[in-house]
Formats: sequence, C-alpha cells, structure tokens
Amino acid sequence: MERVHIKASGEYDVLIGPGLLARVGEMAARAVKPCKAAVITDDTVAGLYGNAVQHSLRAAGFSPCLWAFPHGEQHKTMDTLAQALEWLCAMEISRSDLVVALGGGVPGDLAGFAAAVFGRGMRFVQVPTTLLAAVDSSVGGKTAVDLRGGKNMAGAFHQPEMVICDTDVMAALPDELIRDGSAEMLKYGILDDPALFEAMRSGAWKNEMEKTIARCVAIKRDYVMADERDMGRRQFLNLGHTFGHAVEKCSGFVLTHGQGVAIGLVMAARAAGMDAVGIESACAACGLPVTSPYPADRLASAALHDKKRRGGKITLVLPEAIGKCRLQTIDIKELPGYFARGTGETP
Amino acid sequence: MERVHIKASGEYDVLIGPGLLARVGEMAARAVKPCKAAVITDDTVAGLYGNAVQHSLRAAGFSPCLWAFPHGEQHKTMDTLAQALEWLCAMEISRSDLVVALGGGVPGDLAGFAAAVFGRGMRFVQVPTTLLAAVDSSVGGKTAVDLRGGKNMAGAFHQPEMVICDTDVMAALPDELIRDGSAEMLKYGILDDPALFEAMRSGAWKNEMEKTIARCVAIKRDYVMADERDMGRRQFLNLGHTFGHAVEKCSGFVLTHGQGVAIGLVMAARAAGMDAVGIESACAACGLPVTSPYPADRLASAALHDKKRRGGKITLVLPEAIGKCRLQTIDIKELPGYFARGTGETP
Repeated sequence: MERVHIKASGEYDVLIGPGLLARVGEMAARAVKPCKAAVITDDTVAGLYGNAVQHSLRAAGFSPCLWAFPHGEQHKTMDTLAQALEWLCAMEISRSDLVVALGGGVPGDLAGFAAAVFGRGMRFVQVPTTLLAAVDSSVGGKTAVDLRGGKNMAGAFHQPEMVICDTDVMAALPDELIRDGSAEMLKYGILDDPALFEAMRSGAWKNEMEKTIARCVAIKRDYVMADERDMGRRQFLNLGHTFGHAVEKCSGFVLTHGQGVAIGLVMAARAAGMDAVGIESACAACGLPVTSPYPADRLASAALHDKKRRGGKITLVLPEAIGKCRLQTIDIKELPGYFARGTGETP
Repeated sequence: MERVHIKASGEYDVLIGPGLLARVGEMAARAVKPCKAAVITDDTVAGLYGNAVQHSLRAAGFSPCLWAFPHGEQHKTMDTLAQALEWLCAMEISRSDLVVALGGGVPGDLAGFAAAVFGRGMRFVQVPTTLLAAVDSSVGGKTAVDLRGGKNMAGAFHQPEMVICDTDVMAALPDELIRDGSAEMLKYGILDDPALFEAMRSGAWKNEMEKTIARCVAIKRDYVMADERDMGRRQFLNLGHTFGHAVEKCSGFVLTHGQGVAIGLVMAARAAGMDAVGIESACAACGLPVTSPYPADRLASAALHDKKRRGGKITLVLPEAIGKCRLQTIDIKELPGYFARGTGETP
C-alpha cells in the first residue's frame, strides 16, 4: 500500500493499494471515531460497491446508511445537492458524523460539497472508484456542483479526513474510464515529471498502477499544499483545463472531462508555441482525442464564462517543455488569439 | 460612528453610525478595490434601499447590479440560493468581484452563503437593515439557508470584508422589527453584561442605539474570535436558541426568531433552576412573549433535530445569573426533562 500525506487546512492520508474497498471502515476508523456514516454515491457505483462499503463500515463500528442519485454529470446540480442535504436531515445525521463520498468525480464532488455545507461543515472520507477521481478530484479538497451558467461554479474548499483508493477497483474499470483518468495523469507529467509522461506514453504505467497513482497524487499534493485556495501556484493544475472546459462545454458535455483535457493539453502546447507532437502521440497512446471538433471563436466565447477569470484578465498555463510550464495572465481580449493558435487556425 | 474590529479567519470592521447607507460604496472601497458589486436582497429592502445602495456603490467606482428575491424566511431555501447563483453567473460575476448582502437576516444569510460558494468563495460585505441582523446575523461569518429538515441546516462559515450598519435605518424600523432584534440584545446582556440587560429592561438603550449596537457586536465578536467554528465557546451564543428554535419550528415559523428566542431565554432560565422573573419582565418591556404556546414534549421532539446535537449528546446554555451562564452537555434522553422545566410543566 502506498501512502501520500497531505497537509492543507486539514491534514490527511491518501491510501492507495489493492483490496482497500473491503477495508474502508477499518481505514476510516484510523482517522474518525466510529459514528454514523452517510455514504453518498450514484446508482451505478451503489450497485457495484454499495454493499461492500457499508459492510466494511459496519464491521468497523460505524452505523452506515446509503443514498444514491442517478449517475452522470447532468445530475451534479444544486437540485441533487439539495436532495442529498434533505436526506442527511432525514437520516438524523449530525455535524459530528461522517459522509463517505463513494464514486467517480461526480459523486465525489457532490458528496464533498454536501459535507462542506451540511451543518456548516462535517467530516468526509473520499473513496474514489474511477481513475480520474483517484488522481485528481478526490485529492485537494475542491468540491462543487455545476450551475446552468457553468461547470463547478458553486462549491467549497473542504479537505477530506482520508482518501481511500482501491487499485483493484481501478484495474477493473472499463477502458473508457481508464482513458479518462489518463488525461489528468498526462497533465501531471507535462507539468512536472518527464518520466511519468514517458510511462504514460509507453503504456508502462499500467503495470505499476499503485506507484503511478501515488506519484500523481504526490504531484497534486505539492501544488495544493503550496496554495490550497487556488490563488497562485495551484493554478498550474489548470493546465489544459481552460481550453478543455471550453471543448467540453461546446460539446454539451458529450465529450468527457478526460477527452476535453487531452484536447486542451494539445491546444495549450500549440498556443504556447511549443511543438505539440509529443503530447499528441501520448494522448493517442492513451486512447484520447487531440483535435477540437469546434472552431476557436466558439471555444473562446465559452471560455469567457470560466470562473478562473478575474475581472478582465484570465490566467493560462502554458507548457514550455515536458516537465516545465508557466503561468501567463492575459487580457481577455487576447484569449481568441490563444484559442486560434491552440486549434491551429492561426500559426 | 462606532467601529468594532473583528479578527477571525478574516479581519474586518463593523461600522455603526448614522447615514452610512448612502456611504456604502465609500466604506466598502476602504476594504475592497472597486469591481463588480452584486447586491443580493429581498423585494421589500430592494424597494426601500436598493437604489440608494447602488447609487453609492457607483459613486465609489463599483459596477453594481441588484437581484431581489421574495421576502420572508420561507424563501431562505436551497432553491433561492440556486437562483442567486445562476444570477451571479448571468451577470458574469467572477470570484474576484464583490457580493453586497443587503437586508435583514434572511437576505444576509442567503447572500453570504451565495458568496461563500460561488466560484468556491468570493468576498462580500454585509449591510444589515434590521436590528436582528445588525446585532447578530451580520456579524461572525455564519451563513445558511434552511432545509425542509431544519433551520440553517445548510451553510458555511464565511467572514465578510466589512459590515456597514446605518443607525438611521434602525431608527426607522417598524416596532415589530425593533422587538425582534431586542431579543438577541437581551441575550447578550444575560450572557455577559448586566448593565446592557438593565438598559434593555428600562428602555434606555433606545436613546443610545449606536453605542448599544456596538456593545452587542463587541460581545458577539469576543465569542466569535475565541471560537470561530462554533466548537466550544461560541456555543454560548446559542443561549435561548435550542429552546427558541423548537418554539419557532412548532409554530411553523409563524412566531418570529426574536419571539422564539425570548421564550427560549425564559425557558433556559427556568430549566437551569434560575428565578426567571427578571428575564420575563425584560422580555415584556421589549414587547416580547415569555410563554411557549406548545407543550414541552412537542418542543423537545422538534429540538432533537437540531444540528447542535452531537450524536447522542446536546449542549445547552444555562443561565446562572444575569451576566453569567454555563454550558452543559447532556444526553438527549434528558432533554424532555429540561423542556418540561423550561415550560414550567415540572418544577
């Protein structure tokens, strides 16, 4: 088992290893005295792992209950959040109890946000069941729901008490969900770690999943610890995301987050004037797309609603080489030009 | 003008004095560089003060816009919160802009919560227009909406950049709203300040509103600074509230918060075995009720859903004398007994 320790406003461990799902209760009990444990998940994950997790919690002395909402990003809404909160009330959960966020990015973000605001904040444990959630959304304390006006526009910074990632669950994922997570892993490589990038490009990482996930979490940890509130250094983690969110948004979220990010990584490299061939081949090796189906002007217009915009400015993350990126704050008037270079419409 | 400085997770001033509503922009500009200023209020307050506040913001260099929701506690919901957040999106507010929470406790709590979660947290200024909001809800960073399952059950700790309280607005309030605020002021007197309690009982405080409000804010400040997250000392501020919330809830929120708190103060004194005559006469002098219209068992059952409950325990604030209270954590099984003593059903 790998263990990555994170020291933000709260201090906690990310545990990564085989067989951990059946030991969620035992692990959680290391950080939280047994109490009521409200598992929030989606219907897909509930069917796969709901019973195992509740059984494990019960065996460790917790009193579990479970609520599942319909799967899919389209349910990561204020309305689902309100339902989750009413359910917590109905279960007589108090703010000294525990929420268990079980699932991919959608249940993780939503359950984490519910824990952040129920009774003005209660403890929660993240149990990611997708690769994307394991390497990205479950770590760092960002929780959110989407608004009609934008993805992740309402949320909170709220650190979990523990993150428990079962690598057997990762190994059992359908290819599509492996691909989706690998986009964020490529991002970490481009930001900070040429060896990780090469392992992703060659496919070697699949034989070392535990170590590779831990490496990704450790890279993210360093950014989060330097800047929990996302005002400075943490912005590097947005590499590929300003471009990628715009792609996702233009697709009406038919393209997945990983697909958006992959296209965004290539666009960011091109926009920065870097040779994007290496990134393109790595994305392709991971089964990810590299070309935006949408023209630059539509993407730029979608990006202008991004919450990362500050007044008339926006900060982009631009790669200079694999393992080296820079932040660049530009006037929003310049954004269409960056998008046009990103899609290759202008050189 | 009185100024109370608060040092919590954020540091800010509470400004109290005449004519401040027309100077909101000028005052806010002391703490926040001019930017977009999204005023969130209710329809009543919008009609009274919406234009003046926007005009003042514009004059100070802010770009104001205003959104009002229907007045009343029944609109302090997740649904109204969602509408407020979508409006912020539609106005292209970014997280570096400013929310202005204008109004009584309901707009203040809701707008503050919107600011706490929009883009995972943006700055806001509180402009209380009721006495209750001035002495209590606008100070200390507690924001919330009600759930069907309980009052203030979803919310966040989020400190404002400034609180601006115009005493001319307070002086113009209808009697009903003066009474409602005075219940919280009596609470501060019972907690910490016999002189304040006497000024409330004699009515002398109405001739010294600026100083009295500042005194109440300073008392609250001391509790908040000692325990921002409400895990220990801040719980003293719940004096009268466990009993009072139950009364409000049983009335279907027909009784106001101030009326609930007044009855709750008397009940807390009786439950503690203290002679409640002084508190009763002070409540009566402030035009507040002192007797619960509901029997103890119904109240106790309503209180069991209180978020202040921790597992099988609940912490009560029990007065020993005017100016001296104690915290007592009891098993929830004992709660009906305290309620029965509170209503006078058992001695």
